[in-house]
Amino acid sequence: MFSPPPGAIAVIFLSGRSAADPEGYGEAAAAMELAASRMDGYLGIDSTRDGDGVGITISWWRDEAAALSWRDDPDHARIRDSGRAVWYDWYRVIVATVDRAYGWTRPTGDD
Amino acid sequence: MFSPPPGAIAVIFLSGRSAADPEGYGEAAAAMELAASRMDGYLGIDSTRDGDGVGITISWWRDEAAALSWRDDPDHARIRDSGRAVWYDWYRVIVATVDRAYGWTRPTGDD
Repeated sequence: MFSPPPGAIAVIFLSGRSAADPEGYGEAAAAMELAASRMDGYLGIDSTRDGDGVGITISWWRDEAAALSWRDDPDHARIRDSGRAVWYDWYRVIVATVDRAYGWTRPTGDD
Repeated sequence: MFSPPPGAIAVIFLSGRSAADPEGYGEAAAAMELAASRMDGYLGIDSTRDGDGVGITISWWRDEAAALSWRDDPDHARIRDSGRAVWYDWYRVIVATVDRAYGWTRPTGDD
């Protein structure tokens, strides 16, 4: 189970999808994730969206410099412009530094 | 649009729901949210879950002390135990400190 280390950066993206262009959005979302994963300092991504179109995506970065490189990446900027033009009604971005992390997984019954 | 101030604490809860007990889960989730909102230092909550049962909930707290009070709240602890017993297959918790935040909302067409 992936766990970001203390000092890692969380870029939290909360958004409300418009009803427009589901195909184009799906393609762009996949392209964004691929582009992010190729950046130096990328640690991982978690993403979910409910039936009302409200989504939370968190990308995890090694440090502030890596998060800023992603913010300033030209491919990212271009897709972001399309997001404002077509796919989103609103979004919020919160950048935060990881203090601690832990997790739990249900034990399997076969022990 | 709510925006947490720098220095606020994000408690990020990622989880996979089991198929068990949807009614009990819904009631407990609502009770959790109400209990959190009554805590000193509570700033807000964002939550979404997709069709596969993967959810992200972020509660926002004024400072570390407020986030720790919530972690140690007895009602919270009791519901957390039920979560492990019944409702979740896995979860991850990441605690992070807000560095900066910004947002965007689609301009209305009537200006």
